[in-house]
Amino acid sequence: MPLTAGAVARLVHGELIGRGDVELVGVAPLDRAGPGELAFLASSRHLSYLRGSGAGAVLMTPEFRALAAGPATRIVVPDAHRALRAVMAAMYPEPSPVWGLHPSARVGRGTRWEGRIAVGPQATIGAGVLLGADCVVAGGAVVGDGVRLGSRCRVSEHAVLHAGTAVGDRVVIHAGARVGGEGFRFTPSGNGSERLPHVGRCVLGDDVEVGANTTIDRGAIEDTVLEADVHLDNQIQIGHNVFIGAHTAMAGCAAVAGSARIGRYCLIGGGAGVLGHLEICDRVVITAMSLVSSTIREPGEYSSGTGLMDNRSWRRNAARFKQLDALARRITGRPDT
Amino acid sequence: MPLTAGAVARLVHGELIGRGDVELVGVAPLDRAGPGELAFLASSRHLSYLRGSGAGAVLMTPEFRALAAGPATRIVVPDAHRALRAVMAAMYPEPSPVWGLHPSARVGRGTRWEGRIAVGPQATIGAGVLLGADCVVAGGAVVGDGVRLGSRCRVSEHAVLHAGTAVGDRVVIHAGARVGGEGFRFTPSGNGSERLPHVGRCVLGDDVEVGANTTIDRGAIEDTVLEADVHLDNQIQIGHNVFIGAHTAMAGCAAVAGSARIGRYCLIGGGAGVLGHLEICDRVVITAMSLVSSTIREPGEYSSGTGLMDNRSWRRNAARFKQLDALARRITGRPDT
Amino acid sequence: MPLTAGAVARLVHGELIGRGDVELVGVAPLDRAGPGELAFLASSRHLSYLRGSGAGAVLMTPEFRALAAGPATRIVVPDAHRALRAVMAAMYPEPSPVWGLHPSARVGRGTRWEGRIAVGPQATIGAGVLLGADCVVAGGAVVGDGVRLGSRCRVSEHAVLHAGTAVGDRVVIHAGARVGGEGFRFTPSGNGSERLPHVGRCVLGDDVEVGANTTIDRGAIEDTVLEADVHLDNQIQIGHNVFIGAHTAMAGCAAVAGSARIGRYCLIGGGAGVLGHLEICDRVVITAMSLVSSTIREPGEYSSGTGLMDNRSWRRNAARFKQLDALARRITGRPDT
Repeated sequence: MPLTAGAVARLVHGELIGRGDVELVGVAPLDRAGPGELAFLASSRHLSYLRGSGAGAVLMTPEFRALAAGPATRIVVPDAHRALRAVMAAMYPEPSPVWGLHPSARVGRGTRWEGRIAVGPQATIGAGVLLGADCVVAGGAVVGDGVRLGSRCRVSEHAVLHAGTAVGDRVVIHAGARVGGEGFRFTPSGNGSERLPHVGRCVLGDDVEVGANTTIDRGAIEDTVLEADVHLDNQIQIGHNVFIGAHTAMAGCAAVAGSARIGRYCLIGGGAGVLGHLEICDRVVITAMSLVSSTIREPGEYSSGTGLMDNRSWRRNAARFKQLDALARRITGRPDT
Repeated sequence: MPLTAGAVARLVHGELIGRGDVELVGVAPLDRAGPGELAFLASSRHLSYLRGSGAGAVLMTPEFRALAAGPATRIVVPDAHRALRAVMAAMYPEPSPVWGLHPSARVGRGTRWEGRIAVGPQATIGAGVLLGADCVVAGGAVVGDGVRLGSRCRVSEHAVLHAGTAVGDRVVIHAGARVGGEGFRFTPSGNGSERLPHVGRCVLGDDVEVGANTTIDRGAIEDTVLEADVHLDNQIQIGHNVFIGAHTAMAGCAAVAGSARIGRYCLIGGGAGVLGHLEICDRVVITAMSLVSSTIREPGEYSSGTGLMDNRSWRRNAARFKQLDALARRITGRPDT
Repeated sequence: MPLTAGAVARLVHGELIGRGDVELVGVAPLDRAGPGELAFLASSRHLSYLRGSGAGAVLMTPEFRALAAGPATRIVVPDAHRALRAVMAAMYPEPSPVWGLHPSARVGRGTRWEGRIAVGPQATIGAGVLLGADCVVAGGAVVGDGVRLGSRCRVSEHAVLHAGTAVGDRVVIHAGARVGGEGFRFTPSGNGSERLPHVGRCVLGDDVEVGANTTIDRGAIEDTVLEADVHLDNQIQIGHNVFIGAHTAMAGCAAVAGSARIGRYCLIGGGAGVLGHLEICDRVVITAMSLVSSTIREPGEYSSGTGLMDNRSWRRNAARFKQLDALARRITGRPDT
């Protein structure tokens, strides 16, 4: 939706410098914006792009308002990011879902919902499901028997919520996520018939986000639980009976083995691993691709691995790693054990 | 399905102590079970929960039978886990599949099956497919042309078995798994037209399990083979022409590159990697997130990586890793090469 | 499609030695081929298999033509791999797609295509989509509103191209890939409402390949871009605003965080990670499971991690890694800081 520079200034309660009738059809970075686009400048790091910018107008913070260089039309605001969000929300309104059931969608018996819902083509909703108001179930998604969804949830294309999963309000399940599946049937004894049936559920709190192609197994006897505002990026694996505390976020491709317990306000880096049956306390940061192999009781940042090197140097140093204990014994003078 | 404590005792051939008419509707851990739930105590590690437990009855091994604390109704058995499995199978019977073809399912010409099968909504079964008795193909799953499935297989929601895949009996394919796809078309020459067509199949033995969103590429000329009772957890990647021996299990997010050959009774940890064109002998354990970069000829446990540390210590030690060869030369007195 | 040895020789412009009427129905490795199969010998590494081979005929390079051992019918060519590709293309012709729209497929309004396309069962194509000639959209795939596909693209089973994605010619999207999704809504402030709407697109150049279950997020304001001939294997994660230069290939399970910029002709190994907001120049090789945590300005091969060891040795050396800085100080004589 196009806006004039004047309309943008009014929207963000900013000061308009220059022409208010410049028409803006989109937002773009300062170095790439064209005459119909709004750019933004909120940090002196990007100042060098200002002079050559072809933007129709620039949203900026007060320290840059007096600069001679760059587009003449400026909108000055105290918080450029906040203003940018407001402008983008107006320029790029989220397309409204098509409310109602698509004729090719299937809904099982005893399923109920509040207010309006949107269910896309070839979506399947099982029996005895309860959906809150304004839920969107996209095309090809599967909501299993007895699932409960709060209000304003979004289940994206091809996502699967297995039977019995319980979901809070405003939860977003991205495309291809598999939530509440029964998980790995392997038992260390190698005898699959010794495995307990998995009757626990997967329980997601309010405002949880589950990334594309992420998998979360249901619990065995207890539930697998993600508390409110947990955010999982794409391609994450969460084993059975895992507990993740509120406001914790995990980056792409991280993995948590069965029965691990992760605290609140943690940040788990991309590709990091957490072994099973251990605990991580609140406010722990695990850096990317680190492996957590024992319980962490102190908040803080933790890492494993080695830094990146050119391969030739790496080979030499990695060869020495294999001798490290022997080398250390030479230094400390202690004999081999 | 609810059971009385007396019925549970009869089912597991256990000794009933206390009231046989206590009604039990589910199983729960000792510290969380309520009056309508059966708890279990099989290890002195959980003994401290016994006194305060609100469970309606406790399944336990004989060494705990005389303890005064805890719920009065007890069922004493020599093997509490085995008894628990029997109770759970009775209390939580697996829902019977809806036998037959859902009206929205599609089946290609020349496809045949033995006995009964269950095919869910919007599932697609190609032409010339052969399914054994009691197979279940869940909603949205795709079984390609010419696939063969043994008896009692389960293909879960949105799983894809690509054309020509051959599957044994009692195989479980979890949601979103992709089995027998043609894989990566990249060639090191950078000329995709130099790639051979992939005409090998993916062959899965009896009792194989393929986790949710796991991917297995078909072979190029030979087949990709998983022998009987191989278990793959979620989000695993298996390249073309890989061979995995019977009874081997791999945890979530592990990856095996093309033409690797893994033996029998191996355990590959979560997030571990196996490079291509190498062999791992029988009875090898690879710990989580380790990288196998050359052939392993001896059974045993193998690891790579470093342990987790607080980030500040890690930075100091990781910086020294880059100097390790130079440090070692100082110790051993050998000059730089 | 069966071919006689004589027909094979004519097809590859090779010299026929022996009987031209041997009928060949397939291709197989030298050590496994039967009387109806064509084997090939292009390297002295496989020479030992020649004597015992049961192949009906062998395709070989001239240095082996005079050997007495092995199958009598031989086809001699200067380039055995090139000849093999030609034979396989003739013996295993790719099944022709079923051109046209399957009756259960759905196409939105304003969608147009050139020439012929094939759209499989239960596929969904949104509104305002533009498809080039000879595109194949397999069963259950989803092509979102406003997507543009060049000619001869293939979108495999259950793949999702989210709204607005722009795709060049001859692009292959494997099963279950999710392209152009809006990505992770998490913001470091922990306040999801502070997140900018993601209005950038995902743009894929000609001849790009996206592996099975791989995920690529759309850009926030700018686009996420994969230039021509980029190849992504299965289960890869590409964050928002990432740029990948032409001819770069990434092996399975690699991951790239948001706003990273990767050059041309790079090779990123399996399970490798690239942190966000950094650059990798052209012609860089990252070995498997390495982590790139800062900008790389020089072409070359880079690695991190340690080599695989038996677990007992590894434990000893890994324990010493935690003391490495202290050990180094003892060697260099510098006091603790």
